[in-house]
Amino acid sequence: MARNVAQKLIEEHLVSGEMTPGEEIGMKIDQTLTQDATGTMVMLELEAMGVEQAQTEASAQYVDHNIIQEDNKNPDDHLFLQTAAKRFGMHYSRPGNGVSHPVHMQRLARPGRTLLGSDSHTCANGCMGMLAMGAGGIEVTMAIAGEPFFVKMPQVWGVKLTGKLPDWVSAKDVILELLRRHDVKAGANKVIEYYGPGLEDLSAMDRHVIANMGAELGATASVFPSDDEVKRFMASQNREDEWQELKADRGAQYDIDEEIDLSSLEPMIAKPSSPGNVVPVREIAGEPIFQAYIGSSANPGYRDFAIASEIVKGKTVHENVSFDINPSSRQMLTDLVSNGHIANLLSAGGRLHQAGCNGCIGMGQAPATHKNSLRTTPRNFPGRSGTKEDRVFLCSPEIAAASALYGEITDPRTLDMDYPKVSEPDEPTVDFRLLQEPLPYEEAKNVKIEKGPNIATLPEMEELPDRIEVPVLLKLGDNFSTDEILAGGTRVLPYRSNLPEISKFSFEITDEDYYNRAMAIKDETGHAIVGGSNYGQGSSREHAALAPRYLGLRVALVQDFARIHWQNLVNFGVLPITFEDTEDYMKIDAGDTIVLENLRENIQNHNTFEASIKNKNETITVRHEMSRRQVDMMLRGGLINWVRARK
Amino acid sequence: MARNVAQKLIEEHLVSGEMTPGEEIGMKIDQTLTQDATGTMVMLELEAMGVEQAQTEASAQYVDHNIIQEDNKNPDDHLFLQTAAKRFGMHYSRPGNGVSHPVHMQRLARPGRTLLGSDSHTCANGCMGMLAMGAGGIEVTMAIAGEPFFVKMPQVWGVKLTGKLPDWVSAKDVILELLRRHDVKAGANKVIEYYGPGLEDLSAMDRHVIANMGAELGATASVFPSDDEVKRFMASQNREDEWQELKADRGAQYDIDEEIDLSSLEPMIAKPSSPGNVVPVREIAGEPIFQAYIGSSANPGYRDFAIASEIVKGKTVHENVSFDINPSSRQMLTDLVSNGHIANLLSAGGRLHQAGCNGCIGMGQAPATHKNSLRTTPRNFPGRSGTKEDRVFLCSPEIAAASALYGEITDPRTLDMDYPKVSEPDEPTVDFRLLQEPLPYEEAKNVKIEKGPNIATLPEMEELPDRIEVPVLLKLGDNFSTDEILAGGTRVLPYRSNLPEISKFSFEITDEDYYNRAMAIKDETGHAIVGGSNYGQGSSREHAALAPRYLGLRVALVQDFARIHWQNLVNFGVLPITFEDTEDYMKIDAGDTIVLENLRENIQNHNTFEASIKNKNETITVRHEMSRRQVDMMLRGGLINWVRARK
Repeated sequence: MARNVAQKLIEEHLVSGEMTPGEEIGMKIDQTLTQDATGTMVMLELEAMGVEQAQTEASAQYVDHNIIQEDNKNPDDHLFLQTAAKRFGMHYSRPGNGVSHPVHMQRLARPGRTLLGSDSHTCANGCMGMLAMGAGGIEVTMAIAGEPFFVKMPQVWGVKLTGKLPDWVSAKDVILELLRRHDVKAGANKVIEYYGPGLEDLSAMDRHVIANMGAELGATASVFPSDDEVKRFMASQNREDEWQELKADRGAQYDIDEEIDLSSLEPMIAKPSSPGNVVPVREIAGEPIFQAYIGSSANPGYRDFAIASEIVKGKTVHENVSFDINPSSRQMLTDLVSNGHIANLLSAGGRLHQAGCNGCIGMGQAPATHKNSLRTTPRNFPGRSGTKEDRVFLCSPEIAAASALYGEITDPRTLDMDYPKVSEPDEPTVDFRLLQEPLPYEEAKNVKIEKGPNIATLPEMEELPDRIEVPVLLKLGDNFSTDEILAGGTRVLPYRSNLPEISKFSFEITDEDYYNRAMAIKDETGHAIVGGSNYGQGSSREHAALAPRYLGLRVALVQDFARIHWQNLVNFGVLPITFEDTEDYMKIDAGDTIVLENLRENIQNHNTFEASIKNKNETITVRHEMSRRQVDMMLRGGLINWVRARK
Repeated sequence: MARNVAQKLIEEHLVSGEMTPGEEIGMKIDQTLTQDATGTMVMLELEAMGVEQAQTEASAQYVDHNIIQEDNKNPDDHLFLQTAAKRFGMHYSRPGNGVSHPVHMQRLARPGRTLLGSDSHTCANGCMGMLAMGAGGIEVTMAIAGEPFFVKMPQVWGVKLTGKLPDWVSAKDVILELLRRHDVKAGANKVIEYYGPGLEDLSAMDRHVIANMGAELGATASVFPSDDEVKRFMASQNREDEWQELKADRGAQYDIDEEIDLSSLEPMIAKPSSPGNVVPVREIAGEPIFQAYIGSSANPGYRDFAIASEIVKGKTVHENVSFDINPSSRQMLTDLVSNGHIANLLSAGGRLHQAGCNGCIGMGQAPATHKNSLRTTPRNFPGRSGTKEDRVFLCSPEIAAASALYGEITDPRTLDMDYPKVSEPDEPTVDFRLLQEPLPYEEAKNVKIEKGPNIATLPEMEELPDRIEVPVLLKLGDNFSTDEILAGGTRVLPYRSNLPEISKFSFEITDEDYYNRAMAIKDETGHAIVGGSNYGQGSSREHAALAPRYLGLRVALVQDFARIHWQNLVNFGVLPITFEDTEDYMKIDAGDTIVLENLRENIQNHNTFEASIKNKNETITVRHEMSRRQVDMMLRGGLINWVRARK
């Protein structure tokens, strides 16, 4: 049967399951990517699991998120990550090298490979003919340890590109058009595969722009073929020998069909505060702006900065506009410097920041209250910029630069100039030195991992006991989110590498005393939590499972779970069970004592079993939905113990 | 009588007092400089005083401190400062233009003028033949309003420079040598004046390096003559027409004489954690380092970056070293980019940050815990880097760059290369566009000042009543510091533009309930505070007087005051009185009620008068030491009211 690119990639990495959309499949992972915000916990998990060495073809640890160093925590983390990367045989990219996605593309991405990254925009490297997917930290830990990655077999959504982009329209407008058509959820459980004659005029980096924001469509991955353009790109990085062709078979089919005629597109913009809120920019031209922002993994290419430079060259940006330039990689910044583009941007009034994620994830460059900010970044969720009452628009560098000049939203087609034709340098800077190479095992095994005062080794987690008798410390309502379990933000996240410290923030919005009560009985009985429907919705952050677990949470008994949090609870050894009869929710209160007998046998052999509410002399039926693999994990006390036991 | 440069500058600006060292003199101020950390309060004070227009030759508002924007507060402040600068007829330097001191030198400094700045390194512009002094915010507010600046007539400390610096030794080593000889307090109440044949080989920017760190010697100002080198520098900035010669008369004398033979100097370094802890670098060569940092107002020149670039050119910095490049001005950054130096620094592994103060004042670039950091900045007080347990060394760019290569403290004379001769560009970039010019008054008067949600107009302050009956809310011990009155740091300082909010932190370290108790009686009686000896020592921050005043503090009755806090209390209308008999301190407790009768008449006509402790039926004698001018101010309720009443 003729196969498309996504099917080929999956088939060649399939280790379990069947390729029927919706079925769970396990895939071998060739490469991993971790960034510093999620990477510190990955390293602690590798350590706790007793992993000796990364089992992948290439695993790279990037430092790009937390590169503003206001106190010791971030630089201590950098040192920790650097030494841990050495210890586990991983690449290490130091702060200042740039955003993980373009740097990975430049230095490590290879057609035909799978890439799993603890960053939602990992999908960007789909531009290289890879199956590149974002996942939670511990999933990446598992991949580094050599375990398969489990996911629902996606549908393949084929997007045929025809025609050629008009002047002033660029790759960002292609993905904004898809978001305009389908909004932010259409990609769930799908791989978006791009093909067709329109690819010819899209450079590898243009494809990165499009693949990257597959995350905003909710897609599992975005995939491009590996063609001559990928070959050219890899040759420019002195890695032509790692190239291989990967194209769909003639006659390959897609589960969903779509077409975009590139020649019909016009400059687009996403209005506040959703990437799906897209309109042609002409419709809102004239609105005043106070910030224009070039950079991020959504427009990381040399051309994205060079075109902005050509637009503002010899002019000065409007006095009200903060014109922020956030280079995406050291290599590209060096070329932009050498070719005069940075001088143009600076002379026009640009603020040149260090290479990295920066304001894209709220690390600096927050806009003023209620003032419009135009950004080439991928997301404009409310408050993501750092400013609670923000107004962020997403657009191409062409729109951002044109608008910076006039101090108002500007359709770049109305500029009194020809569309600048920028070309990439013939021989771009290539620098292998700055990405620290993995050490050979004989050297790596002796590396001492440096831990600053805020980095705490993960504690041991107990096995699941056969009998649990625990008090209910909290009874929560419906739609309780992971943000309410453990908040994000700059008050809490600096403790991401320190489980004992970050645990202090657990449930504090709901019950300030939870921490104290939980700690008091942590090592005696532990405790349970009762919840309503859609428990654990929202952010995928693992700490929302790990922190309460550290405080002795043994059982979460709710009406039903949000998927990711449910998985996180299993991974960290908290038993997730639901009421067989949802009305039984009414029978339990905070302060009650739940008893589960014969538990180990029950979860191995039954999906439903009994729980008693001891103080009320009542018995109810509860249900678990763990797979065989997950039950094993639960018996061991979670993924970390499970991996350790298998070695 | 033959006069030196400092005496000429003072004499030509003298409006009151006699030029006898130690006597208070008043001087006309020609130019002012405010940065954003102190400038927002200056603008609020100008507004509260009803000032219509800056009365100076030039007043410039720079944004260089708070340029990391993690939420709305900094960008809202920028917009506030920009519109306020327009309203009051001031220059405005947008974020990204660079550090106030070099930018002021490039665009506005003029020989023969006085400059008052709300930044302690304002003295740097003494390199231009100016009398440049740092002061508290409200002193600068007064200068902008056209009032004189009052200071003790300083002694003039003449430093004769002879000889020529050897290879690998530069301006930073000159000032480090002075710090080695005299430590950090020797300059108090002195102006340091540099002269002699050694000046010939020191560029204007080299002199900036030396003048800048006069602040670390505690000097009132540092002064250089205005000679042909100053003329050359101004010509390179297209401002030759603003140059005038200013030299000491033949035979001029100094109160203190000192000589430095430049040819005898060697590369120096200040060890943790004082700028006075100086040794020759060879003595500590070999210690491992984890950060090397180029930039700040202490090494802001083109040559300071260019020499680092030449040292690391074609090499890679050690893998353990974060090599942070903090450009000092946009103009210089543009030249460094155009001439290949930034490409060299990036290729060697440099992290290029936006132009501004950055890590020098703990805004990013904090080092890892206990890990050595080499910096070209002026200060290494414990924790100033942002990392509580830091180890910061101060040195020249030569030492920082050489050490970055080897990952250990390195005497640059041991490098296997010739000393690079870097020369400034013949025609440096000059850009007048990016410094917003003052508006003409007719336009300025209609400008609306933009205030984000965190910027609060100053409240009205009442006049001093004739009778005060107030409870004592706190009784404090000796050496109580302004840090204990109102802490600094990132938790508190973001509220610098919001008096009602920042007031909530008053005295919180000592008494969490002070705020609530003070607020409860703020508008009825107000309250008093009793203190021991050296009350209000430490940081000069004005908020330590202003915030308790806002909460109703009327009287501070102590054994004796630290000078600057005493002045701040007077400026903000809090009556500062001392026990005539220090033993009377024992007679008053928290909770007692103090009554001052006939107060307005008393402070005008007497230095001592009676206070009764009502509930104890006791009477004690108290003393004030305010001048005539200050008594007037106190009667009005502080400086703001006083200025407003005079208009």
